[in-house]
Amino acid sequence: MARITGFPEWLPQQELIQQDLIARVREAFELHGFAPLQTRSVELLEDLLSQGDTDKEIYGVTRLAGEPAPAEWGLHYDLTVPFARFVSESRSKLTFPFRRYQIQQAWRGERPQLGRFREFIQADADVIDEGVLDLRHDADLLSLLARATSDLPVPTIRLLVNNRKVLQGFYLGLGISDVVGALRAVDKLPKIGDQGVKEQLIELGHSTGQAEASVGLTKIAASDSVGLEAVRDLGVEHPLLDEGLTELGFVLDRVQTTAQRDTVVAALHIARGFDYYTGTVAEGVFADHPDLGSVCSGGRYDTLASGGSTPLPGVGVSIGISRIMAFCDHLELLKSERRTPAEVMVIVHSEAERNEADVVADRLRGHGVKTLVSDSTAAYGKQIKRADRLGIRYVWFPGQNSQPDEVRDIRSGTQAAADADVWRPATG
Amino acid sequence: MARITGFPEWLPQQELIQQDLIARVREAFELHGFAPLQTRSVELLEDLLSQGDTDKEIYGVTRLAGEPAPAEWGLHYDLTVPFARFVSESRSKLTFPFRRYQIQQAWRGERPQLGRFREFIQADADVIDEGVLDLRHDADLLSLLARATSDLPVPTIRLLVNNRKVLQGFYLGLGISDVVGALRAVDKLPKIGDQGVKEQLIELGHSTGQAEASVGLTKIAASDSVGLEAVRDLGVEHPLLDEGLTELGFVLDRVQTTAQRDTVVAALHIARGFDYYTGTVAEGVFADHPDLGSVCSGGRYDTLASGGSTPLPGVGVSIGISRIMAFCDHLELLKSERRTPAEVMVIVHSEAERNEADVVADRLRGHGVKTLVSDSTAAYGKQIKRADRLGIRYVWFPGQNSQPDEVRDIRSGTQAAADADVWRPATG
Repeated sequence: MARITGFPEWLPQQELIQQDLIARVREAFELHGFAPLQTRSVELLEDLLSQGDTDKEIYGVTRLAGEPAPAEWGLHYDLTVPFARFVSESRSKLTFPFRRYQIQQAWRGERPQLGRFREFIQADADVIDEGVLDLRHDADLLSLLARATSDLPVPTIRLLVNNRKVLQGFYLGLGISDVVGALRAVDKLPKIGDQGVKEQLIELGHSTGQAEASVGLTKIAASDSVGLEAVRDLGVEHPLLDEGLTELGFVLDRVQTTAQRDTVVAALHIARGFDYYTGTVAEGVFADHPDLGSVCSGGRYDTLASGGSTPLPGVGVSIGISRIMAFCDHLELLKSERRTPAEVMVIVHSEAERNEADVVADRLRGHGVKTLVSDSTAAYGKQIKRADRLGIRYVWFPGQNSQPDEVRDIRSGTQAAADADVWRPATG
Repeated sequence: MARITGFPEWLPQQELIQQDLIARVREAFELHGFAPLQTRSVELLEDLLSQGDTDKEIYGVTRLAGEPAPAEWGLHYDLTVPFARFVSESRSKLTFPFRRYQIQQAWRGERPQLGRFREFIQADADVIDEGVLDLRHDADLLSLLARATSDLPVPTIRLLVNNRKVLQGFYLGLGISDVVGALRAVDKLPKIGDQGVKEQLIELGHSTGQAEASVGLTKIAASDSVGLEAVRDLGVEHPLLDEGLTELGFVLDRVQTTAQRDTVVAALHIARGFDYYTGTVAEGVFADHPDLGSVCSGGRYDTLASGGSTPLPGVGVSIGISRIMAFCDHLELLKSERRTPAEVMVIVHSEAERNEADVVADRLRGHGVKTLVSDSTAAYGKQIKRADRLGIRYVWFPGQNSQPDEVRDIRSGTQAAADADVWRPATG
């Protein structure tokens, strides 16, 4: 039997952190009025394969009890393709522009490595409209992504933005007609460097001049439309380049009006691998560890979904929860000792007094205090040690012989009388 | 291509309800100190098939890009088998008794019907200990299940409890040695009735007397150990029956000391299909619609997990989120018109004033108010109508010409000045 690798399973102390990340992202998405959605885990293989991207490896799904036959279904490899399919199918039941968020697993049969899993959790937010989707949504989704990621207790994330039309128009203006090949080469810039990209472009049959201009474009930094003017100075002209620069400038300028202005910068080497993006593209990296790779991404897709003759253009963002977890683990930032959500453990004096401990626990839970009752009736020191090992800060002593209950803060060692109907743990 | 049926996808107005159910169950589990866990979606087929239950149909998973080969992995069909596997593997890193909850999808390739999906969400809570797991955990898990389900905005759920040993001991005492066959027959009682069960037992080669006694057992109702004495009056004797009655009586009596006492009753026909249960078994039904079938379940499994020579007995409960959704939908209880989590929509007077609306929205979000900004700048009536269609109760008018902001309650029609930094929607 093939061992199962690349399917992460976190221990409780890490899963508590992952659940906290997910809850924060969900809250940010809901604060912006995005509605929850879950799509099925499987799609028709023909739908998954029609996106034309051969980079991803799909897992096929078959009924073991059925006749042996090639798989007709596959596990989805992202949440955007299923969302577009759902909107196309459910169009008559939705109100447009339709905003949804979706936090689910996705699967890719790739070779596992740091931050690249075969099963991973993504948190996506997208908006799709009928006919035309205003460009301000591209800016609003980037602001939302910046806000959602800035609320996370992880290293600072910087968002790098580009527009496919800028790259396409620039290449076409340069006389490079194999735009996809050039995009793929330039997309590797953080991994293989300027020289590597130049060599790849020359291998593809382009001239040294074309290769140097392509790399030159990626050196331009800008945070607004004025900064983008530097692209014009490179002397390349094409209508698609103009369109891309106008769009990118609009998006940057709109983000500049928000509190997220310092998080988002243009980065003209960003292309994003997936073929379905048609305009804005973005990715986020840990600002101090860009070499680890992207932890979130996004982009505009004008042709992924359609409702017959009506186009259903969309733009969305995706936060790689599993990637963030993996990178944080790599950076040794997941060292929590908290192994349970419980905030307090109720001491049990003796098995005969367990019922009193249960009653105290239910009074604490009654106003939202997460409470565990001690499993043992060992000496107090042992019970306290177990609470400490679980990362629980407080232990509760039910009062005996009409004495009041007392609660001890294990961290500070202080102990005081307390009422189970009103007591709350200190925050932090 | 085979159409994909049995994989539910809820519209936002229903998914909001599902997310609310999940959040409430999660809260109940955490209040009791259960830690979150997510296991991978795939297991080795040999592990899934080793449970010996042939009722379930497993989906195999293969890499499309690999050599054509029979599937070696399968999607898990429940959360208990993966949990037991996880605990066996991770034993040295866990603190026992280990309490975890797990809210995930599971997959079974069965024919879809009301409440039976091929992809479904379950919310499980389990505790596993090393060596021996005290019987009080069986009662505590039932109390937790009763509490978690009673907090849900769904029809009242009644929990029916039994103990496999009672059934096994009773059959053995009657001279029925094919215990599994008899269990399967009796488990069908709600579907095929007394006469149907008797006929099945007789078909299996048992006498009329044995069949009648077996059905007679199922007629006994009890809510505590005293009520269970009626079983003795049937005159069947076996050491395993004694053990089962003692365990079941203890569990019932302990639940009787809690606030959930009225929710839990013994039901001596309950067997639960899965082969891994060894003692306590339980299932919950909508009290007024028992014919729909179970919406939650649970039981004791003493041999599912093991750590070499050390047994790892467990007991757990499982809430069928997707089943509850399906039954509520069937009962027409999912008629919500709320299509977004947003509580208020900010009116946009004109495109030139969109920025002011965005600023207001961010002030509202700053203290947790879920806020959408109007997509259009149409007449106020149209913007309000759109908010209403999304199920948003409030619309917000940013003040113009130094006038204060105003908020309108669409439901009541009242409108009043309000401050975006402090305003909150009414609850309910």
